[in-house]
Order: sequence, then structure tokens, then C-alpha cells
Amino acid sequence: MATKKRKTGPIREGRNERPAPASASSFWLYGLHSARAALGNPRRKIRRALVTDRAQIELGQILVRRGIAPTMAAPDSISRMLPPGAVHQGVALLCEPLPPLDLEDVLAGAKPGQRLVAVLDQVTDPHNEGAILRSAAAFGLAAVIVQDRHAPPESGVLAKAASGALDIVPRVSVVNIARALEELGRFGFWRIALAGDGDSTLREAAPPGDAAVVLGAEGVGLRRLVRERCDISASIPMGGDMESLNVSNAAAIAFYELRRKP
Amino acid sequence: MATKKRKTGPIREGRNERPAPASASSFWLYGLHSARAALGNPRRKIRRALVTDRAQIELGQILVRRGIAPTMAAPDSISRMLPPGAVHQGVALLCEPLPPLDLEDVLAGAKPGQRLVAVLDQVTDPHNEGAILRSAAAFGLAAVIVQDRHAPPESGVLAKAASGALDIVPRVSVVNIARALEELGRFGFWRIALAGDGDSTLREAAPPGDAAVVLGAEGVGLRRLVRERCDISASIPMGGDMESLNVSNAAAIAFYELRRKP
Repeated sequence: MATKKRKTGPIREGRNERPAPASASSFWLYGLHSARAALGNPRRKIRRALVTDRAQIELGQILVRRGIAPTMAAPDSISRMLPPGAVHQGVALLCEPLPPLDLEDVLAGAKPGQRLVAVLDQVTDPHNEGAILRSAAAFGLAAVIVQDRHAPPESGVLAKAASGALDIVPRVSVVNIARALEELGRFGFWRIALAGDGDSTLREAAPPGDAAVVLGAEGVGLRRLVRERCDISASIPMGGDMESLNVSNAAAIAFYELRRKP
Repeated sequence: MATKKRKTGPIREGRNERPAPASASSFWLYGLHSARAALGNPRRKIRRALVTDRAQIELGQILVRRGIAPTMAAPDSISRMLPPGAVHQGVALLCEPLPPLDLEDVLAGAKPGQRLVAVLDQVTDPHNEGAILRSAAAFGLAAVIVQDRHAPPESGVLAKAASGALDIVPRVSVVNIARALEELGRFGFWRIALAGDGDSTLREAAPPGDAAVVLGAEGVGLRRLVRERCDISASIPMGGDMESLNVSNAAAIAFYELRRKP
């Protein structure tokens, strides 16, 4: 009996095709930047790819390299898989969340004495966390640490806001932020709590070696138990009429200041 | 004939009440920070206020001061006026956009030699512009200049992202950005184009006196004609794996750096 030859080229999408997600936590990741980064990340499991003819020109090579046969689709059929108004630029990938990372392993992979990490205490908005991941990638942070029960799950919105950084920056999910801060302390990190009423300015708080900057949720700020695990509290001097910055903007300033050559 | 006495107290909302907007450009502004700032801004025309019992406790005094009799409403009835998922915290105000401002007047109102303004070249996303307005208020900018045909209109989303700053920072809408930059030059402003391929770093580009930082749209960047009107181009040193920051994060870093005491 002749075996049917496996298709390797693009498959034209059938009418009304709408497959069920591959697992409870799988999600559609979309947009060219996010998709390119996901395809370039060997740790990212991709179950399915929908692309337009135009996006296929952009992504064809990297799809072949990953051994993924994309389904060719019209822009509208891709939109139907995504939240209303999602700007997908002709590509959507059905992805699994990344496998968990161990904090100690991640820190061991970066150069001691020059490491900067961010710790997010219950920053739950995916747009904010996404923008923080993007800045973290831009400034070469060694890790972004989040609390698994109080961080947004991996999603298309998070990936899109991160503009690829979700697949670039090690995002370490921990059960307990206070314990992760103790661990960072043992590894020699200088832990800076960012707070409007900080004891020093961010500049004064900057250490010569490894640093962790700890950011709280907007409105609520850092929890007491988390703040107590830090070595110093620091504020961003502003001098204007607002009490606080958007958390991703505060994070960007902190990364910039702590990465700055003196 | 007896005239009907005008009600001054709160009015209980009728069933299915859903008044038409007061003008084509009027919009619902929501959230406690945004509403408080709008109520505190004498230039802001407010046509109607919907509040919950709880928000009335927070805003009652300032509503009375503005002579506004709010309509008491349940949280759900307020939600129905707003985009899905809008976090209104019990208040929505039907507002008119602010009357236009003249650049020269606004600049005259700030202290020469210490003025910082932002110029947004076609930043069309209201979340990004809102976050930029918020940082501009935090760092005491004299103005944020936008192009009238290529900036988001005043809206609840813009006001919410600005967290009150839409009613605090002078937002000057101009017809032509290049011409506004020429005007800033005549007023002695040092015009810095923020660009990934800038000739200097932001720190090196910082002048001792008045400065304008010019930011382009994400992806596209600054238009050539706009960039040519600047005195210098500058980049934010990053050293990571991403080509660019979110525009509101780049703006926050620029405001921080240019406001910094040397």
C-alpha cells in the first residue's frame, strides 16, 4: 500500500476552519516582531502558524528552519482568531507558554558584577508588563522576575506589548517574591525598592555591582513584606505635579539610570 | 404661573437613560484621577456627571464647587456608556475637548531657561500619548506639542492613560510640526531629535537652557522634514538586544535625563 506523502509546502486554509487551542494554556501570538522572536526561540513550542502571502515573504525562511508548514490565510481569517482590533501584520502563531526557568540557573548565565534584574511585585496589566519586558531586553537585563499567581499569563497581548522581548528576556516566575529577594541577596545583588517616598534617589542608590530593582503595582505600590527584603528604597526625582509615573515608564527610567556609565 | 424649581441635588438615574453626546466631539471621561483633574480644570467644560454613591463621597465637594449636579448611577449603568472593560471607578463625565492653546502664550507662562517641552511627530496611539502626558506632568514639562491631524482626539482612553495629566499639562495642537519647531528655535529652544541612530547620546545633547525633545511614531520614526528642523539628534544608550523602546518609555527616559541636575 502506498503511503500518502506528507505535505511540506504551505497549506491553503479551508473555509470556516477554527481549530480548538492545543492545550488549556496555549495562546495566539501575533505581529511580526513577536512572531519573529518566537520563531527564533528554540524553547518556544509552536503548534500552528497562520500567515498571509505577504507575511510569508518575511517569515518563510525562519518557518522552514523551524520545520513549520504554515497555513496560508487571508488577513480577515487571522483577525477572527484574535482579540478585536489586534494588529497582527499577517501572522498568528498558536504557541505554548515557555517552560519554567530556575532563578539560580538564569543568574549563573549572566556576567557577575554587571547583572541587572527587575522584580515585579504584582504588576498584573499585560500592557505594562509587556512594555517592561521590552525595555528589559533593550537594556540587556539578566532577568525579569514575576510572581506566578499575580502576573499576567503569557498571551498575545503580553507578547505584542513586549514586541518580541517575551522570547528574548528570561522571565522567571516565582511562587514567593520575598523569598526570591532573599535569594538575590545571597547572590550578592543590591536590592533597590522603587517607591515615591524612597529614602534616596535612584542615582544615589545605584551600586557598583549587581542590582535588582523592585517595582510595585500602580496605585498599591510595593507590599510591606517585599519592601522589607530590600537593601534600600529609592525614588525618581521629578518635581512636577503628578504623584507617580506609569509603572513601565518608571521601570524604563530605572533601567536607564542603573545601566548608565558613571 | 409658577416656575418649576431647578433641582440642585443629585438626581436618581431613570431606567434606560442614554442621552446623546452633547456635541460631535464630546466624550466620556472616566476614572477617579482623570475626573478629579477634569473637575479641577476651569478650562474643561463638563456637560454631565454620572457617579456612584461611593464616588460621590470622593468627588462631592469638587462637584459642588463646579456647580455640577451629578446623576447618581449604578456601576453597570456607567459601564454601559463606556468602552467594554473600561475601569471607571464609579465616575464618568461627559466632557468637551479643551479649547485650543497658542504655543507662544503657553511658553510665555513658563520660566525661560528652565523650560522643557515634548514634540510628538504623529504618535497616534492614545495609550502611548496618555502615558507621555502623565510623565510630562510628573517632570513638569511646559508643554506637549502634537500635530492636530495626526494625534489621537481627546477621549476617555487618552484621559485614562494620562491619569489626570490631560487636564494638567498644556497640550498644544499645531497644524505643522516643522513650523512649530522653527518657532521653538526662535524662542531659543535647543531642539533634540530622539532617534536610534542619533549623532550623540541624550546626555551629550542636553543643553544648559530650554530644550525641546522631539519623538517620532514607533516603527516609522521621525519624518525627515521634522528631523531637519532639529539642532541635534540623540539616542538613548541601551546595549541590549532590542532595536527600540516603546515611545512612552523613551519619552520618560528623555524627560528624566533632561530634567536631571548635572
